Amino acid sequence: MGISLGELAVRFGCELRGDPDTRVVRVATLASADASALSFLANPHYRQQLVQTRAGAVVLGAAHAHDCPTAALVCENPYATYARIASLLHPTPVAAPGVHPSAIVAGSARIDPTAHVGALAVIGERVVVGPRVRVGPYCLIEEGVTLAAEVHLVGRVTLCRDVEIGARALLQPGTVIGGDGFGFAPERGQWLKVPQVGTVRIGADVEIGANTTIDRGAIDDTIIEEGVKLDNLIQVGHNVRIGAHSALAACVGISGSTTIGKRCMIGGAVGFAGHLTICDDVVIMGYSMVSRSITKPGVYSGGIPVEEANTWRRLVARFKRSDSLVTRLKRLERAAGAAPAQEEDDD
Amino acid sequence: MGISLGELAVRFGCELRGDPDTRVVRVATLASADASALSFLANPHYRQQLVQTRAGAVVLGAAHAHDCPTAALVCENPYATYARIASLLHPTPVAAPGVHPSAIVAGSARIDPTAHVGALAVIGERVVVGPRVRVGPYCLIEEGVTLAAEVHLVGRVTLCRDVEIGARALLQPGTVIGGDGFGFAPERGQWLKVPQVGTVRIGADVEIGANTTIDRGAIDDTIIEEGVKLDNLIQVGHNVRIGAHSALAACVGISGSTTIGKRCMIGGAVGFAGHLTICDDVVIMGYSMVSRSITKPGVYSGGIPVEEANTWRRLVARFKRSDSLVTRLKRLERAAGAAPAQEEDDD
Amino acid sequence: MGISLGELAVRFGCELRGDPDTRVVRVATLASADASALSFLANPHYRQQLVQTRAGAVVLGAAHAHDCPTAALVCENPYATYARIASLLHPTPVAAPGVHPSAIVAGSARIDPTAHVGALAVIGERVVVGPRVRVGPYCLIEEGVTLAAEVHLVGRVTLCRDVEIGARALLQPGTVIGGDGFGFAPERGQWLKVPQVGTVRIGADVEIGANTTIDRGAIDDTIIEEGVKLDNLIQVGHNVRIGAHSALAACVGISGSTTIGKRCMIGGAVGFAGHLTICDDVVIMGYSMVSRSITKPGVYSGGIPVEEANTWRRLVARFKRSDSLVTRLKRLERAAGAAPAQEEDDD
Repeated sequence: MGISLGELAVRFGCELRGDPDTRVVRVATLASADASALSFLANPHYRQQLVQTRAGAVVLGAAHAHDCPTAALVCENPYATYARIASLLHPTPVAAPGVHPSAIVAGSARIDPTAHVGALAVIGERVVVGPRVRVGPYCLIEEGVTLAAEVHLVGRVTLCRDVEIGARALLQPGTVIGGDGFGFAPERGQWLKVPQVGTVRIGADVEIGANTTIDRGAIDDTIIEEGVKLDNLIQVGHNVRIGAHSALAACVGISGSTTIGKRCMIGGAVGFAGHLTICDDVVIMGYSMVSRSITKPGVYSGGIPVEEANTWRRLVARFKRSDSLVTRLKRLERAAGAAPAQEEDDD
Repeated sequence: MGISLGELAVRFGCELRGDPDTRVVRVATLASADASALSFLANPHYRQQLVQTRAGAVVLGAAHAHDCPTAALVCENPYATYARIASLLHPTPVAAPGVHPSAIVAGSARIDPTAHVGALAVIGERVVVGPRVRVGPYCLIEEGVTLAAEVHLVGRVTLCRDVEIGARALLQPGTVIGGDGFGFAPERGQWLKVPQVGTVRIGADVEIGANTTIDRGAIDDTIIEEGVKLDNLIQVGHNVRIGAHSALAACVGISGSTTIGKRCMIGGAVGFAGHLTICDDVVIMGYSMVSRSITKPGVYSGGIPVEEANTWRRLVARFKRSDSLVTRLKRLERAAGAAPAQEEDDD
Repeated sequence: MGISLGELAVRFGCELRGDPDTRVVRVATLASADASALSFLANPHYRQQLVQTRAGAVVLGAAHAHDCPTAALVCENPYATYARIASLLHPTPVAAPGVHPSAIVAGSARIDPTAHVGALAVIGERVVVGPRVRVGPYCLIEEGVTLAAEVHLVGRVTLCRDVEIGARALLQPGTVIGGDGFGFAPERGQWLKVPQVGTVRIGADVEIGANTTIDRGAIDDTIIEEGVKLDNLIQVGHNVRIGAHSALAACVGISGSTTIGKRCMIGGAVGFAGHLTICDDVVIMGYSMVSRSITKPGVYSGGIPVEEANTWRRLVARFKRSDSLVTRLKRLERAAGAAPAQEEDDD
């Protein structure tokens, strides 16, 4: 059972240092691996664990090969190579083609014969389910939705009417795609609902985390381009566009009509105001508020790290009294006969 | 097909500038509309798109009528009028009255014959479902829940025992109303669960976004008054009360027993501590922490916009060293023979 | 009907001041209680309501007994005693043992005969459901999951493959336990999925709020120790560990591989970066960003309270110009012949 290191080396283009007939059957961390497990080193921070590992083999870069006390698969991108080997050793359980007898499928839906539709799924009129698609239990797929080839809905995914999901997209449980956007017209102290007539289009190879919500467009569509990765509990407002291969960590909120560029990396709990444009290749550290457009690639931050509570209380009190600080400074400047700085004239 | 501009003008009290026999069949943005589409201008920001639009007609205010290159429906509140016309052109698909054979309905539940109960819904004992209510697939309606006339549960909505939903309320998928509040009594280093015996009462014309959660009251009820609009992924703690016609954007969190007034507007990701009272007509900008009651109507803010990361790091470092700044200022004041400002005595 | 105060006093070790034959049938707040209701005073803040209460009896500490105008059950921890009495007066409705005919249970699953499995539950291969477990409607329990004795899944709970749930754990609707962690290897401008082969282990007496998500481990497991209480809409990343008896309020986000100690109390919307270690007995106030490990028990804060919007705008402007403040201070110091403070040399 398992796979030999020789086969792994050939298959993934690694240089093997060790016995090609050694077999590994699963992956493990450097610290917990035994002789039947394969591990990896991508973050030099774990070098100490490498030195002590009992793994059957370790995937790593050339720079660390000499520190490895066991067989090594040396390659350029150890994390990516590890990911591929882990997929091989721990394949996603296959699902038999066919529709579970408890699923409720509308007459006009077209389900590819190679697709799997799980228990208690509900599939509406004119839905198209492509080849090798996997629809888990309780998926609610409203009328007009299309699922391209090899889409995987783990279970309990909600796709509202006319939503389009690109090939190989993977949606975790609890995601709601295509709920109404938050659109209301004020009228005499009350709110009048604005129909949300757009939909959501999700590109190929997108992954969407548990309980994340993506609203349908108000008129035009909300768009998630190919390769985007969304973590759990993210809110994507109506008419947002997220550019290809951007990755967003959990708890991010994006207000309506904001566009995020390609290859952006957004930390956890970042909040975006509406109608902004964030250019390509922007990194935003977690816990930041983005209230203006960003036109220059780079790294951006906005969070203040926690402090011991008494210290923090004093810092906040000073912050709130910064007016008085400036007043005192001005008084001193005047006393010293210095002209106050030009940019402070508006104080 | 479609509706004539003449009919729209009469029905919605607009002044028509153009041919009353022109027909529109759908809505579109100013930029993407063709001759069969109706568009609108509410935000002057989009005036440039108005000038170039190819829409069949545009709903707008008198101030912009002369800029409109096509037929115009002139009215006082173009966004509200647009919303009404969009509802007419894009009606919510009707659902046939009756209970889907796969739904599981308790014997003592009373379902109005004009109501629709969708596939795989579960309806508990003593539930009351009013006229023209629409219960989508997978809705879990526990014992004792009441749904007033024309409530619409899109699908996968959870209503725990005894929850009350007012007329015409619209709940998006994934909402959980009436889960237990977070109530625990500390006892010898552990937490003892405090039964949550209240429920949740939701007023008429409330809308609740996808995956939003509203906890049942600990003893008394949690209350959402009529006309409140809640976006996605909002958390409402036990015994919160939200006043009529307030609108809360996504990712807001409200701790237990806090009261928010009527006609408030709360931006995304705002957090409220518990046991606060926010008066009527308060606007709170997104990403703010509200830790004290607010007794005066007005606009409040609390977020600091993101900066380029190195700049931000320096700003935070200064903020954390503000003590030293004050010390230096005091030293200078003493040297200059100035008395330190009174309000700084507690430094 | 109800319970006599005499019986309550004996059962919960209270000193009774009043008629032992008085009976109470339900709990109520001090303000709304009538003669058939029992109330409690735990927070001295509500003392005024005590003086005016019409409750049949009040649970309180010795210090407030003389203020009580009605029968009193005097004890050391009134909130905990109240919780126990409330559980007695308002018991969770029992669920009959057995599997609902609409549930779909795999052949190899082992369901204890005393367990209840509700309508439309889906239970996969090799699942073990222990004694007196209660599985509500729509629970999705994937292959290999184990539920220890008396676990209660309220309804619509998702447990992905191999998840372990400890005795008496209570999970609210919409929770997703064991979705894939957010693990992707960058490769040529794209993201390669890293299989998430660990699982989630949840200890005894844990409570998990509505729509909270806990990701499965990347290699090792994500672990929630016994007695932990998680509120709604919390995100727990892969390989996080939360120590016994810690309580986390709603909307908290914890990035991957962070460890939180025992008996910690985390306020709402707190965000944790990844790979941190928070020691035991740490309290973190709501709306804080934790980006470094905490090694000392204590109270920590990081939020700045909201201000009136114009005031706030000025404060933020000053904050962003703090460089200029320091420059002006230095100029004055130089003019005064004072040496600048050592710690500011890096400015």
